[in-house]
Amino acid sequence: LSGAEICACAGAVADWGTSNLRIWLLDGDGRVLARAASADGADRIDPDGFEAVLRAKLVALGASWPAETKLPVVICGMAGARNGWRETGYVAVPAAPTDCLRPVVGIEAVDLDIRIMPGLSKPDAQNPDVMRGEETQLLGFTAAEPDFSGLLCMPGTHSKWVRFAQGRIVNFHTAITGELFALLSGQSVLRHVIGHASGFTADHPAFESGLAVTLVQPERLMLDLFPVRAAGLLGGQTGAAAAARLSGLLIGAEIALSLAGALPAAPVVLVAAGKLAPLYARALTRAGRDVRLFDAEELVLDGLRTAARLLFPRSFKE
Amino acid sequence: LSGAEICACAGAVADWGTSNLRIWLLDGDGRVLARAASADGADRIDPDGFEAVLRAKLVALGASWPAETKLPVVICGMAGARNGWRETGYVAVPAAPTDCLRPVVGIEAVDLDIRIMPGLSKPDAQNPDVMRGEETQLLGFTAAEPDFSGLLCMPGTHSKWVRFAQGRIVNFHTAITGELFALLSGQSVLRHVIGHASGFTADHPAFESGLAVTLVQPERLMLDLFPVRAAGLLGGQTGAAAAARLSGLLIGAEIALSLAGALPAAPVVLVAAGKLAPLYARALTRAGRDVRLFDAEELVLDGLRTAARLLFPRSFKE
Repeated sequence: LSGAEICACAGAVADWGTSNLRIWLLDGDGRVLARAASADGADRIDPDGFEAVLRAKLVALGASWPAETKLPVVICGMAGARNGWRETGYVAVPAAPTDCLRPVVGIEAVDLDIRIMPGLSKPDAQNPDVMRGEETQLLGFTAAEPDFSGLLCMPGTHSKWVRFAQGRIVNFHTAITGELFALLSGQSVLRHVIGHASGFTADHPAFESGLAVTLVQPERLMLDLFPVRAAGLLGGQTGAAAAARLSGLLIGAEIALSLAGALPAAPVVLVAAGKLAPLYARALTRAGRDVRLFDAEELVLDGLRTAARLLFPRSFKE
Repeated sequence: LSGAEICACAGAVADWGTSNLRIWLLDGDGRVLARAASADGADRIDPDGFEAVLRAKLVALGASWPAETKLPVVICGMAGARNGWRETGYVAVPAAPTDCLRPVVGIEAVDLDIRIMPGLSKPDAQNPDVMRGEETQLLGFTAAEPDFSGLLCMPGTHSKWVRFAQGRIVNFHTAITGELFALLSGQSVLRHVIGHASGFTADHPAFESGLAVTLVQPERLMLDLFPVRAAGLLGGQTGAAAAARLSGLLIGAEIALSLAGALPAAPVVLVAAGKLAPLYARALTRAGRDVRLFDAEELVLDGLRTAARLLFPRSFKE
């Protein structure tokens, strides 16, 4: 993506996560004119440094807009966290995804009109929870399915499970499944057997065998971790099989616990990208669920585009 | 402990763990003449380097024994692991702790007669397990209670739960509770709320509240981890409270799962040292169990002394 080409754009939108920044230039119809992805995550930038990074990205993408006007910019993700650019709060559930558009935080620059999305919170005394960034994917999802009722699963480092009723988010919870996999495979005693082998696919027998345990008895997870190591010592289990087993145990437990109380036969909306999509699709199928797969990256863009249209109605057409 | 004083000893025993080395000089009655502890763990020593480290410790402790005789030395722990001094195998359960004395590996040096203890294994296809080092504590325990039947808990980085029937080990399993606590509090998203605060006691309300959840519903552990972080973001929970809550959740789940199938009213033998002893004693009490506490460090020494007596009957009195 060269900066040589000039893009006359109606606005820019960005998903500014902990580790990565993705930015898109949009025309007045919401179509993507240019895009960029980089490792300029919010964790690496001081609060004073965000505007310069944003500006550099816009220049690199060749963004241009009429003189003496301000370019609309919508940002979601960790740019709005406590140590991000400007702290945005949380909208408490139950809430519709569009409710996140009201407490958006604005930052006025000379030639930019920036809005940062808030997160969602569940201020439950026993099980409080938060999300930041995913609310924008949910906004993208409900733009397509405004009256959705059911369960939506967003796997990742911190998987989010969201329950909808007629387009409103009524509950959600987080399972730190991806983080547990990374810590256990890379830093616990299991690293001796898993090593650097994490390449396995959803049809690996050890992934299936792990699922078979915890989909039925999710509590078994805690006592089934060390046996992955012991199997390597006693039986010469391969690293890939150990990684697959660990992944199956973790994802199986997450799914069994998250489906508890859900309507038995209802399909699950799976919002995923990359290698997690086939793993979770397989696991949900093993749990007896039909899966409707949505691409996580497309939903972020859809959500940011929806936010841009609603926040800047004069710049974007419906 | 100065090397200036000369100890005429009958033998030496050592617990050579991953991170630490503890060594004792014994007289012919098994009494401790001198002791030393250091960070010369097996992880830091090449296979060729163990003898020199051992010899240096003996000199520093002032060990002396008759010329032209070999000093008996008994070692347990990771010195017998694959990357230790000399790999010793595993004795499969069911087994009596004294069964570990037969496959001891001998190393003959000019003036030392060294024996390294094997570990214990459970060669179960679904849930294989191993221990190395703890078998010697079990030998010490059964020296005092040769006909014990019941459940024994050894909390730690990798907690071991051991079921005895009339002095024989019939089953055991491992929960990596201590390792999970260290990884989650120090390296996961929970580090932001726990920070360096890990100082809490067994009567902390958040420890009790964590126990109350997972002692009854151990499967809740996985979904109750992220709320510890969210409580910090939404409610300003302190780091000590978060550490206590995490500890209670983990220990409660470990205990609930490990007591499943155990005789309902039987007391549990708790083999612990340091700050884990009061935490596990409190948690076991909350689970409705009477606790008999044994000091973990004393049991290692008792076990090594028992092994020395049985392996070197001419050097030690019964």
